This record gives sequence, structure tokens and C-alpha cells, in this order.
Amino acid sequence: MSDQTNNAPLRVGLLGLGTVGQGVLSILARNGASIAERAGRPITVTMAAVRDTAKSRGDLPEGLDITTDPMAVVNSDSVDVVVELMGGIETPEQFVRAALQAGKPVVTANKALLALRGEALFDLARQHNAPLAFEAAVAGGIPLIKALREGLAANVVSSIAGIINGTCNYILTQMDEAGTPFADVLAEAQRLGYAEADPSFDIDGIDAAHKLTLLASIAFGIPLSFDKVHCEGVGLVSVDDIRYAAELGYRIKHLGIARLNNGGVELRVHPTLLPKSELLANVNGVLNATVFGADAASPTGYFGPGAGGEATASAVLADVVDIARGASMPGLGGPAASDLAVLPIEDAVSGHYLRLRVADVPGVLTAISGILAQAQISIEAINQKEIANPGSDTNVVILTAPVQERTMRAAVEQMMALDSVRPGITRIRVEHTQ
Amino acid sequence: MSDQTNNAPLRVGLLGLGTVGQGVLSILARNGASIAERAGRPITVTMAAVRDTAKSRGDLPEGLDITTDPMAVVNSDSVDVVVELMGGIETPEQFVRAALQAGKPVVTANKALLALRGEALFDLARQHNAPLAFEAAVAGGIPLIKALREGLAANVVSSIAGIINGTCNYILTQMDEAGTPFADVLAEAQRLGYAEADPSFDIDGIDAAHKLTLLASIAFGIPLSFDKVHCEGVGLVSVDDIRYAAELGYRIKHLGIARLNNGGVELRVHPTLLPKSELLANVNGVLNATVFGADAASPTGYFGPGAGGEATASAVLADVVDIARGASMPGLGGPAASDLAVLPIEDAVSGHYLRLRVADVPGVLTAISGILAQAQISIEAINQKEIANPGSDTNVVILTAPVQERTMRAAVEQMMALDSVRPGITRIRVEHTQ
Repeated sequence: MSDQTNNAPLRVGLLGLGTVGQGVLSILARNGASIAERAGRPITVTMAAVRDTAKSRGDLPEGLDITTDPMAVVNSDSVDVVVELMGGIETPEQFVRAALQAGKPVVTANKALLALRGEALFDLARQHNAPLAFEAAVAGGIPLIKALREGLAANVVSSIAGIINGTCNYILTQMDEAGTPFADVLAEAQRLGYAEADPSFDIDGIDAAHKLTLLASIAFGIPLSFDKVHCEGVGLVSVDDIRYAAELGYRIKHLGIARLNNGGVELRVHPTLLPKSELLANVNGVLNATVFGADAASPTGYFGPGAGGEATASAVLADVVDIARGASMPGLGGPAASDLAVLPIEDAVSGHYLRLRVADVPGVLTAISGILAQAQISIEAINQKEIANPGSDTNVVILTAPVQERTMRAAVEQMMALDSVRPGITRIRVEHTQ
Repeated sequence: MSDQTNNAPLRVGLLGLGTVGQGVLSILARNGASIAERAGRPITVTMAAVRDTAKSRGDLPEGLDITTDPMAVVNSDSVDVVVELMGGIETPEQFVRAALQAGKPVVTANKALLALRGEALFDLARQHNAPLAFEAAVAGGIPLIKALREGLAANVVSSIAGIINGTCNYILTQMDEAGTPFADVLAEAQRLGYAEADPSFDIDGIDAAHKLTLLASIAFGIPLSFDKVHCEGVGLVSVDDIRYAAELGYRIKHLGIARLNNGGVELRVHPTLLPKSELLANVNGVLNATVFGADAASPTGYFGPGAGGEATASAVLADVVDIARGASMPGLGGPAASDLAVLPIEDAVSGHYLRLRVADVPGVLTAISGILAQAQISIEAINQKEIANPGSDTNVVILTAPVQERTMRAAVEQMMALDSVRPGITRIRVEHTQ
């Protein structure tokens, strides 16, 4: 049971007072009483470090000590828990380290920091017996880390598949529903604030890879392996691909996937065809969703807001409540270090969607299907699309059964060597997540 | 942090050794090492009470003490935690009471016991400072209770909508996909073991109402209010309704719904039209799924196996691991007793799907739409379906905007009084859950 005798408030210091920090304050102002009941004691924010004290931030709680010095928050005698909401790597890292070294629990929403520097930080947390909690770092307001570490504690997880970047999902949803090309949707998303001015972090899959790194280490007990994630961006998908996929009964989503395969772990982020009947195929807009395959309770899936001030603050406060209850799980929370290796992408196994632009000459389909047959890749569907004018190029769309990546790559290279196949074969993996 | 100094095994006594109990044993045999890491100590089953010791149960762990006396398990010095998997009400109640009175934590999958006798049992648990954990009682292997109590701890929940009975969802899915009438699907489900010989508990919504009772008390802090749940079974849905709903862009699911409404709580279980784009509308077969509306992180949704030996055992063991970690949440885990009243169904607000069988005479549609207009009920769609033969009866399908139940009932009564309207108007509520 939690330490119910200690009813003194748990005092929180915020590093950063942007939308998430302000979300923490507004939720506590609104729901402080019920949060205190669940935590067994009141939660109060006593200090906040900001870059610019002159900036307007609406109503701040009375007595909140605002400073421009994050280290003053970390070292303050009136701060029991440090909540890091600064973003970046090196700058927050020093404050997280200092807090853990002082034995103070840390809550962070910083997926990049943990994915890149987490090994050392979790070591430090263990040494000083201080929780380093990070529910908000993956999938925003969805209690996904808690589900994986605690809800599925009795399971061996075999697969993770997630829509874990809202920007990519928004873009694909718009391309699907409005038929608008990628570049136009991206520009609109930037105008609406769903995508950054420099969107590469989101659309190239880096952000999803950070989150997948954390999930995979929890699920499989492997070291944090961001450098080993195979990453493909959402930009390789065209409106044609979305339409052709739909004709075959699929939708295209940008997924992070981690999966046990033959004694190793596949780690990959890429656009993916999913059967329309699957739950992940029906998650639209900026929503996030993740499905876990496991050996006892399977599949289980989780969806909700992956970003937003109050949604992310909800996850931050869930961690703070666990810390107040004495129920926070130490470390990453996965099984002990496993001997599973992260597999090179060449070893991954997937079905494939191929789109080739080919000249309208006899024998092209025969040549292409011959290459696949020779490589022993089963074809589940092959369609030659309508031609605008006799003699003009046409699209050939192929769906294959699961095959090892290296086999598919070799086959695609052979196809590209055909005279009648134009440069640039689109290749998108096909997965089943349920 | 959990009490890491106590590494003695946590000793579990099982009351019942059916599919769930055997699931607990098989998971521990397979995953005991990783479970011990997460729990901070080994979990071991030392005793099990069964009805018939002669029954074959496959490989049982060495040293497992089998008895026909449940009280011997409760009172055993070699049992730290009692797991109740007997089913029924009075019989398990006495053993749960005895365990709690002895200060032993109890884990139960028994939704009926808690929904009907939970108030006294949770009081007893509080008095003796013994956790009474019940993750497995709702939605089987989905960590739904944990998400609601802990993951959303910072939120005020405003709505719950869930597919929380796998039998009903299986039946509706089969009626939808195969066009098979209700009675035939039910007979097939009984043959396959998805429905009991006496299926009323599932198909009349009683089981869903038990689960909804628990969720609503956690979410809203109201007393366990099973007697106040308005309950309609899945049998009132016809294959025609499913087809007409699809034509309007909806699917029909059997839902448990609990929702804040004007200072009260709606509590109801009934078939429901959902827009096809919503996640719940895409949850098929025996899967369960639930969506919570809340004020900070919203909507969040959870899906997975609602039944099955190992899936349910996964949830039982998650509770046992929390108890081992000292992280189990006491009581029901909701906010303190609220002054929210459960509303009579007449106060509930929903859109409505109506199907009327009418004579093929002029003026029927005008009379029906006139009744709705008079009651100020907005019509979103109204369709007269094809007639088999001139002069034969025809179906009229109407979709309305949200309206209070008592207003709709009065309007339906007026419609039934029309000469051209045949007896038996089908009325199914329409909801939006995202």
C-alpha cells in the first residue's frame, strides 16, 4: 500500500512552462481535489523555470516561484519532484542528471532525451533509487507505458505496432479523405500548427523512432537502440498508392514496428499497408494508437491523443500521482537485459506492395512476375492500371506474401534492370497487427 | 518505490482451478522469471481449492496443495494472497470476506460479486487495509481498470462507452457479416462455446451491466448501482436494422454507456448505432473495447480480448504483481463519494433510429414526421424502403437528432396510435463516442 501516513503535499518543480507545463497547472487548478484523493496527498507546483519571465502565461497559481534558472528548481528545498518539459537534449540532460543525483524523482515528456541518453540516465536513477518516469514521452495522453509495463506485466510481448506520430497520421488521413497530394497537405498542416516549420523530425520518422526505441526496450529488455531503427518517411506515399491500396482492401498508415523474429528484434518505422478491418487502419487524424501482440492477453490496443498541452500533462500527472503513492516503477520497467539482438533490416519479414511505372509493351507483366517467381515470392494480387493513352506508361501494382527484406530487394533490383520498367519503384510493406 | 528488500516469494492461493486458474498456472510456469523481475519477488501458487480433486487438469506444479475446502486456502499460513475464481455470489462472498478479515489481499475476476456486494466488500477491505483488486472483472485481458484509475488519475471522466460483452459483439458481427438472423447466430455461438446454454445473462445485457456498474463507480465516485442500470438486450436488433443502419453510415454495437448529464449520471446498456468511422464501430467478433471521454486526455480507447483463460489470467497476475510491488490501489479507486445521482432512463439523451412497419397508404410519412415536428425532434434522415408488392406493408426508417428519452417515448406512442403503423416499432439509440 502507499504511504498513507504522509499527507504532506508533494511539491513539483517544472522545468519549462509552455503548453504542457501550463496544462499541468490548469489540470491541478481544476481537478486538484480528486487528484489528491487518488495520490493520497495533495500535489502542488511550487516552482517553475522559464526562459523569459516577462512572457504572458495567463493566471498562475498564487505563490508559484518563477525563475529563469532551472538548476534553482532542481536544488530547491521546496521541490520534491522535478518535471522536465524543456525539450532538447544536452540542456535538459544536465538538470535531469542533477535531480537524480540529488535523489529527486524526475518526470519527463522528452522522448529524444531518453531514446538517446536513457541508458546512462536510468543507471543514475537506479543508483540513487529515484524514479525516472516518462508516460508522457510516448503517445501523449494514452497510458501506454503503464499498460505495457504493469497491465501486461505477466506477458511476454512479441510485437508492437503503433501510429505514434500524429503529424504523419494527419497527413495520410488528409491525403486519403481529400485526395490532396503530400506536399499540399504538409503545407496546410504547417499553417494549422500540426507540423513544424522544419517538419523533417516528424515526417522522416525520427520522432516515431525515438518512441519506438523506448517501447522496444520495455517490451524486449534490449538496450535503447535508436541508432538501429530502420526509418522511412511518410513522403514516399502518393495519393495513387492510397487509392490502389484501398482497391485491394488496405489503408496506409505510418507505423513504428518492433517484433520478435527468429531470436532477434525487428525495429522499423515506415509507411505500412494494413487491412481495412484492423483497428489501426481506422485511427484517423492526429490520434495515436498502438497494438501489442503478447503470449497471454493478445492483441491489446490503445488509442487517444498523442499530443496537446492537457493530454500530455495528463500523462505527466499520472506519473506524479504514482510517485506520490510510492507506486512508480523503477528503471525502464522491462524484463532484465535480454540477449536479443536488433536485426538488420535485411532480415525483416513483411508482405510488400510494389508500384512500378512501366512502358505499355507486351511481356512486361510476364517479366515482372517471372522475377518474383524465380525468387519464390508469392504474388497475392497483381493489377495493371488503366492507361491514359495507348502507348503511354502505366502503373503496375503488386501485393506479395511475406518475404525477407533482402530477397525483396534483390527482386526489385532485377525489376529495375528491365528496359520497360521506369526508374523509381515504390515499395511499401504490408503488415497484419491483429 | 516498492519494498525491494522483501524478496521472499509472494504465495498465491487459488479458489477455483478452471480455465482462468489453469491460465494463471501456465503463465507462471512459462513467464515466472520476467514476472518476478517486474514484481520484485517471485510469485508462486501454493494452494488451490477445487470441487473435484479427481478431475484431470494437465500438469500441475510440484508441491501445489490441492484441496476441496476453499476456507483452508483462505486460512493457510502458506497463502499471502487469495485469488477468487469460483463464480457465483454467496459462495465466493464468504471466502472473500474471510480473506479480507484476515488482512489478506484478494484478487477476483468476479464482476457479479462486486457489482452486487461490492460496497460491503470494499468497506471490509478498507477496514483491514487489504487490497481487493479486480482488473480481470472487466474486459478480461485489457488493463482497463488500471487505465481508468491510474492512467487517467488526473482527469475528470465524463463518459464511458464500451463493448464489454464478447458474446453480444460476436452475435452482432455475425449478423452483420453473414446476414444471419439473431436466433441462428445464437444457436451457432452456443455450439462453438461463445454463448452459454442459458444465454440470457449475456444477451440480455446483465453481464455488461455488472461491468458498467464497476466502471461507473470508479469514474464518477457513485455507489455501485447495478439496480439502476437501464438494460436492453441484443435480441431486439434484426438483420434489416443492421443493413438500414449501414446504408445511413452506421454500425450497431451492444454498448454499456455511463455519462455525465446535467448533474447526474446516465447508466444504460443497449444496442447502439455508431458512425462507421468510430473506433468502437470497427471492433468485431469477441473483442472488447471501451472509450473514455475526459477533460484532459480525451478520447482514450482500449481494446483486446474480453475473455479466455490466459487473457483473464493475465489481468489476475497484473493485480498480483501490483500487490507484490506494494502498488495496489486501495478501494474502488475512484474519486470520493460524489453527490451525483443516477438518472432515470427518461432523462437520458440520445439520437434515435426508428423502424416502423407501415401500410402503403398516402400520408403515412407526413403523419409520422408531423408527430416528430410537433415534439420538436429533428429528423436527420427518413427513408421509406422498397415495397415487395404494391399495397403490402413497408419499412420506414428514421434517424433523429439527440432528444430526451421521455420526449421520444411520447412521440413513439403517438406513432403507434396511427392506424397505418403496425404494432412493434423498433427503437435503437444513436451515440457518438469520439
